[in-house]
Amino acid sequence: MMKLPEPIQNVADELSNLPSIGPRQAIRLAFYLIGEKTEDVHKLAVNINNLRRLKICKHCFFPHQNAGDLCDICGNPNRNQNVIMIVEKETDLISLENTKKFTGRYFITGPIPKTGFLENGQRDRIESLKKTIKQDLKGKAREIIFAFNPSSLGDFQAATLMKELAPFTEKMSRLGRGLPTGGEIEFADDETLGSALERRN
Amino acid sequence: MMKLPEPIQNVADELSNLPSIGPRQAIRLAFYLIGEKTEDVHKLAVNINNLRRLKICKHCFFPHQNAGDLCDICGNPNRNQNVIMIVEKETDLISLENTKKFTGRYFITGPIPKTGFLENGQRDRIESLKKTIKQDLKGKAREIIFAFNPSSLGDFQAATLMKELAPFTEKMSRLGRGLPTGGEIEFADDETLGSALERRN
Repeated sequence: MMKLPEPIQNVADELSNLPSIGPRQAIRLAFYLIGEKTEDVHKLAVNINNLRRLKICKHCFFPHQNAGDLCDICGNPNRNQNVIMIVEKETDLISLENTKKFTGRYFITGPIPKTGFLENGQRDRIESLKKTIKQDLKGKAREIIFAFNPSSLGDFQAATLMKELAPFTEKMSRLGRGLPTGGEIEFADDETLGSALERRN
Repeated sequence: MMKLPEPIQNVADELSNLPSIGPRQAIRLAFYLIGEKTEDVHKLAVNINNLRRLKICKHCFFPHQNAGDLCDICGNPNRNQNVIMIVEKETDLISLENTKKFTGRYFITGPIPKTGFLENGQRDRIESLKKTIKQDLKGKAREIIFAFNPSSLGDFQAATLMKELAPFTEKMSRLGRGLPTGGEIEFADDETLGSALERRN
């Protein structure tokens, strides 16, 4: 492989370490940046560097830059702090929040490992959730909603956490399963159609 | 859309301005960076910022960080400086250089606009190429190879530049057309098969 100037190789190497960016795309991106206005490249560098300043919410683990320990949602007195939706990723939280149909708060586990067993940092988050429920909600949440992906990994994780968190909530629920809006019955897989039949209403 | 903390939104906006990165992927990447070690994020920012320090080669327009005006290839006395391969992009140069079959030098036009007409900055590059040939090669290169993509846009650009540069070189050539190695005749398109037949050897 042709030797590239070090600054290009460095950026390409680091970009290709990011998820969903391959080595060739990383090199293309590095060259694209070289062609950009220097002030734009500087701005990107500064903004990436500023990510380090973000704080992580004490309750839900979403990043924020508020004065206190809580993100906008967990610090909002108009949201039901005793209804907790457990999600895997920050981007899942954003998608659910964008529906504007949920007025509780969230809790982010972080990416579920393929083994199905949470890592130590994730276990710590679960323990901190239990502690918050004990301290702030007198030991029981009103409802915990498990909003993991509708996959075998998500189902397994939900089942495991449901057992563990049962003593900490009055009610547990999962997101509905069925036909996606705009989908076609003819092309739906058996699992989806089965769920749609079982949960008809 | 849910309001994101400003540092995240800034990075997501700027990443989604890059080619081949969509808005959702940009948000995922921003959150991924937040989860990375702060020193790694800082290193990425510093390295992106360092791209601004690169110089552009006076002859071929490839970025470099040498003391003089020339990149490693154009400054290399062991390369035939009078055999010039014209390419569209830096990444095309890298792919061709990786074959280790070319001992001349390169010239990068920059991305060919869909209109087929080069922009002013690109016209300036062509004029500087003519000037270099006049000054350093006594008015004529030994060979100019047109290595544009085998597409109608690339063909059109090659034809246009061939007319313009004919007085500046003894010989002009283009990359061979035919079946790609490992390809299957059954699945080759008519154009490719036609070229393969015409240029059989």
